[in-house]
Amino acid sequence: MKPIVYSVRVEAAPPGLHDNTADLDRLQQALATTLADDRSLTIPFDRIVPVTRVFRESGFSGYALLNNLEQGWVLADFLASRPQLLAGMALDLGTTHLEATLLDLDSGKTLAEGNLENTQISFGADILSRIHYATGKRRQQKQLAPDFLDPGLYELQQVIVSAINKLAGQLAAEAGLQPDEIRALSVSGNTTMAHLFLGVDPYHICREPYIPLFNRAPALEAAQLKLAIHGAAPVWIMPSVGSYFGGDLISGILASGMAQSEKTRMLIDVGTNAEVVLGNNDWLIACAGAAGPALEGGVARMGMRAGPGAIEYVSIDPASYEMKYRTIDNGPPRGICGSGLIDLVAALYLTQMIDIRGKFRDPEKEQDPVRAVFMKEHIQEHGGQRSFLVAGKNESYQGREVLLEQIDLDAMIRSKAAMYAILTTLISQVGLEFSDLEEITVAGAFGRHINPERAITLGMLPDLPRSVYRAIGNSSLRGAEQVLLDEAARRACEKIVSSITYIELNVNQEFMIRFSGSRFIPHTDSSLFPSVPSFGGME
Amino acid sequence: MKPIVYSVRVEAAPPGLHDNTADLDRLQQALATTLADDRSLTIPFDRIVPVTRVFRESGFSGYALLNNLEQGWVLADFLASRPQLLAGMALDLGTTHLEATLLDLDSGKTLAEGNLENTQISFGADILSRIHYATGKRRQQKQLAPDFLDPGLYELQQVIVSAINKLAGQLAAEAGLQPDEIRALSVSGNTTMAHLFLGVDPYHICREPYIPLFNRAPALEAAQLKLAIHGAAPVWIMPSVGSYFGGDLISGILASGMAQSEKTRMLIDVGTNAEVVLGNNDWLIACAGAAGPALEGGVARMGMRAGPGAIEYVSIDPASYEMKYRTIDNGPPRGICGSGLIDLVAALYLTQMIDIRGKFRDPEKEQDPVRAVFMKEHIQEHGGQRSFLVAGKNESYQGREVLLEQIDLDAMIRSKAAMYAILTTLISQVGLEFSDLEEITVAGAFGRHINPERAITLGMLPDLPRSVYRAIGNSSLRGAEQVLLDEAARRACEKIVSSITYIELNVNQEFMIRFSGSRFIPHTDSSLFPSVPSFGGME
Repeated sequence: MKPIVYSVRVEAAPPGLHDNTADLDRLQQALATTLADDRSLTIPFDRIVPVTRVFRESGFSGYALLNNLEQGWVLADFLASRPQLLAGMALDLGTTHLEATLLDLDSGKTLAEGNLENTQISFGADILSRIHYATGKRRQQKQLAPDFLDPGLYELQQVIVSAINKLAGQLAAEAGLQPDEIRALSVSGNTTMAHLFLGVDPYHICREPYIPLFNRAPALEAAQLKLAIHGAAPVWIMPSVGSYFGGDLISGILASGMAQSEKTRMLIDVGTNAEVVLGNNDWLIACAGAAGPALEGGVARMGMRAGPGAIEYVSIDPASYEMKYRTIDNGPPRGICGSGLIDLVAALYLTQMIDIRGKFRDPEKEQDPVRAVFMKEHIQEHGGQRSFLVAGKNESYQGREVLLEQIDLDAMIRSKAAMYAILTTLISQVGLEFSDLEEITVAGAFGRHINPERAITLGMLPDLPRSVYRAIGNSSLRGAEQVLLDEAARRACEKIVSSITYIELNVNQEFMIRFSGSRFIPHTDSSLFPSVPSFGGME
Repeated sequence: MKPIVYSVRVEAAPPGLHDNTADLDRLQQALATTLADDRSLTIPFDRIVPVTRVFRESGFSGYALLNNLEQGWVLADFLASRPQLLAGMALDLGTTHLEATLLDLDSGKTLAEGNLENTQISFGADILSRIHYATGKRRQQKQLAPDFLDPGLYELQQVIVSAINKLAGQLAAEAGLQPDEIRALSVSGNTTMAHLFLGVDPYHICREPYIPLFNRAPALEAAQLKLAIHGAAPVWIMPSVGSYFGGDLISGILASGMAQSEKTRMLIDVGTNAEVVLGNNDWLIACAGAAGPALEGGVARMGMRAGPGAIEYVSIDPASYEMKYRTIDNGPPRGICGSGLIDLVAALYLTQMIDIRGKFRDPEKEQDPVRAVFMKEHIQEHGGQRSFLVAGKNESYQGREVLLEQIDLDAMIRSKAAMYAILTTLISQVGLEFSDLEEITVAGAFGRHINPERAITLGMLPDLPRSVYRAIGNSSLRGAEQVLLDEAARRACEKIVSSITYIELNVNQEFMIRFSGSRFIPHTDSSLFPSVPSFGGME
């Protein structure tokens, strides 16, 4: 494995009256001998003074830190003694959250991990409103001076740089390091976040024909972005494919290993959008659709991200009607996250408290006496709208009861229908069946906490042997880690970008038909879900 | 000819729903097509926003300005319309003076020229005292923090950057341009000046074994040095060979054309030192020695640089003893510059007012009545030391008479002896005779104003047909101009650096013998100077 930053021992003969090679040339020659590589070696201007000083004071020997870039080697630093540790930070730069790990670049070991809210949220919760904020001044001017930077864009950039610096400080402290001991940074984010991070105009990203300003960022060093890690740390930004196909997904594909697999696999990443990729080492096809919100806390009133107080697991015993739940931190419940919601809706379906359309049944009409008691206790009705009480005032956080309302349930059904429709549309595009898949990799917070069993019950994921499913957590972050550690992973990203085909689902009529058919639990065609009990009928 | 900055027309198809290439990729692809070159193309991070903005606003077409570097192409700018003019500044960064020209990079035409005192003089007149000033703080600390910049060094750098900016402003104004329309800068200076200009530690330049920190500067852009020309202008610094063999001399060799000549030539550059190079397109041998001071205003009390009030020409009619002189600006005389001094001493010798050792004869013992009158009028004696009155109080600047004292004459004789000894030592090293030389190129202010006839009279230059001599003025500046205009000249510098052999004269015993033999006018062995009248005898 070839990490993005190397340390190599360098030894040179000292100068004398008969060897008056300049210090810088001496260092360059010694490095060329050590590297024995035909790639160019650059010593940037700002490094000449510090690097040659240590080289001379250490008797013309020491340890060179080299950034290992596609364009060639760049001398990052020169140290008298071998660095104890070369640390690199991998960052998933999400629209709502930043999540990062600090790695030992030699061993690949995780030194620290952490996350932080993306404080850009105060300028707009979603990508569109941030683009508007960043480019707001534009409305007044048709042509901009070439060097004009929208003040909004600058502000958003500074906010994200500060957040990264804060997170870097936390990770470094946790690992017992100084922030400037972080010698590399890889960043995986969607196309807009990448533009905002670099302070590059995102104006056309959300305007037809949706052209980003860049897909491949240039070689960057931390000081150019005023990042508070080591100034010469390479900042490697995951390449994107287009405005709606960002580096975070390229990172996920990398992390899933599907682009290196001979057999076809599927990657499902549910964030704000559901993004799905199908393929192998020969071809990759991808699409995205709005299937996520109900699972991400964006729609359900009591929905929330997986965090403190989030109910992540729910079960209702189909005989005793005993209900159990668990929050992520075992604290009093504040709401329900995606996986809890799926568990809950699956349980409501299996205990026949909702019908196949996902509508609450009427407790008054219930025939089963045990169930009737439970339903009367939990299903409430206000203004003609029913809701399900998950946690009452006496057990919940700050006495605010946790409810699942019909409106939330409806959104959940739409999301699961959209998800299944996306998956089936995609697989049919290439003439395959779900059973042809070697693996379905489920990424995201959704993938980490979800029980595929329950998602299958709802008809959200195809009814395949459970062993086909593999959760990899934050795949965007996993990919960012891989590129820090391995040159081959960095090259693989280029290959993924160039081999991917993107299909637009919103304009696909086949998709709309499939979506309608998927709006029942588990599906209009229940033969597609042989392992799921079918109750039939609606109220 | 391939200048260091190019403008090329770029045209790309506009994006659409079926061609969603990112703006930056689109520009890069269009440039790659236009350049049709296998060298890499870099678009630095800070250029992405302005360059892509103009590209888009001009309908995905326009003019790219490219820095044409050895390492590859670098996009410097993108303009909607063809630039009227691409201007580049060539600079001779001398220890005492800066001299520069502004060139039209397409035609090679000179747009403006100018010069300025090197204001570093107030920190030390010579290189050694400036190195001491720059690195003075070092005395207190044995080891320096890698990023420690001596405050003195910083100060000297700022002074030189300000001077360059001032000169750039003058040149631009003269050419009717803004300073930021200067799109390239080439700098030719000695090794210490190059270090001070870049703010790079010159400490070891003057300490055995005299190792510079760099000979080849890295690729630089003007903004990195806070130069007030265009920020993306490439700053090309003439490579040096060692502490005492700077880029100014490499530049001179380039300008002389000797490194491209099949026949052997000699280059003589008299500045603070006399620097002499011998060779052809196959080999080059060089040496330097202290032959200059008397000719540069460094020793003679009334000596001065070629400037306002400097007597640059003197004659004394050998029959009538009428003396004529001319100052550079035709103003009242303030002193004598190198060429005036050579004329004067040659005239004093030819009129037999000094003997072959360069000692004033006694006016009282003069037999020729006409000469006796003249000598009594002009040769004065104070405290046993004779001096020659060149210009009396009534005709000189601010009534200060211009005198040539015996002590000045002695220094002059030592200088001319050193010069001839250097030339003969060098030519004998390679087993050649002066008559084998196709050309002797005389550079520097010395070369521009000197009359080779008079220098031969003194025995300073070899007695060859006068047509062998060619004056090229400021060769350091001429070379700096060539590298701006021609890629081949930039490559030639590399070849010169690698093919040159430097010999130390100070440790050469043969040199000392030749020096002693040269301390007569024209020489101890007058047969070496058949064209010079020989008077013989001393007082």
